[in-house]
Amino acid sequence: MSERIPVLRIGDVLLVSVQFDLEDQTVLNLQEDLAEQIVAKSARGVVIDISALEIVDSFVGRMLATVAAISRVLDARTVVVGMRPAVAITLVELGLSLGGVSTALDLEKGLAKLRRPIGSASQ
Amino acid sequence: MSERIPVLRIGDVLLVSVQFDLEDQTVLNLQEDLAEQIVAKSARGVVIDISALEIVDSFVGRMLATVAAISRVLDARTVVVGMRPAVAITLVELGLSLGGVSTALDLEKGLAKLRRPIGSASQ
Repeated sequence: MSERIPVLRIGDVLLVSVQFDLEDQTVLNLQEDLAEQIVAKSARGVVIDISALEIVDSFVGRMLATVAAISRVLDARTVVVGMRPAVAITLVELGLSLGGVSTALDLEKGLAKLRRPIGSASQ
Repeated sequence: MSERIPVLRIGDVLLVSVQFDLEDQTVLNLQEDLAEQIVAKSARGVVIDISALEIVDSFVGRMLATVAAISRVLDARTVVVGMRPAVAITLVELGLSLGGVSTALDLEKGLAKLRRPIGSASQ
């Protein structure tokens, strides 16, 4: 298994598809790669797809929040897409509300959200 | 580890990011999911990103060729993107030329290739 999750690019948006349970080092690598790519490609947004994840615990929740915070500091926005209904239920039951992390139902809705100006109605 | 690789959608193109060594069942699941999604979403193209793969052996090569063939039957085109230089060298050394599989350097170039009509200059 690779220890680096590939960061893909669509225009000025970076795309990450999280497909397996993350270890500490993988998360650190991802945060580093994303920060580098945001700067190198002048990316305006980051989309993180978690549709493959059956469990989102506090570790993953923290990772998502940290990525969003890093992006924000670098003037990019982050949208988490593809959350399963069961994951949403578990998150709330665990008391994790993913505060500060923007979400959308799928990749396409996430890309659309990034295209809208910050502060518009459904942001 | 999930046994299903998520199939993402960007407009009428499906996107698959292969991030770990594939087992037989994972490949079968992927082919099934892709075929279903091509039909369900009327997809015109499939992009398979293999930038995370350090090794592409005959098993993976065959998988790529089969996915391309399934897509073709369903009137969609397949482009494999993100191949590492070392992987290209190994493939040729192994005598695997990925015949019938279209390639592009990265996701963006792959999407551009799918937008061009079949038979145009650099197809």
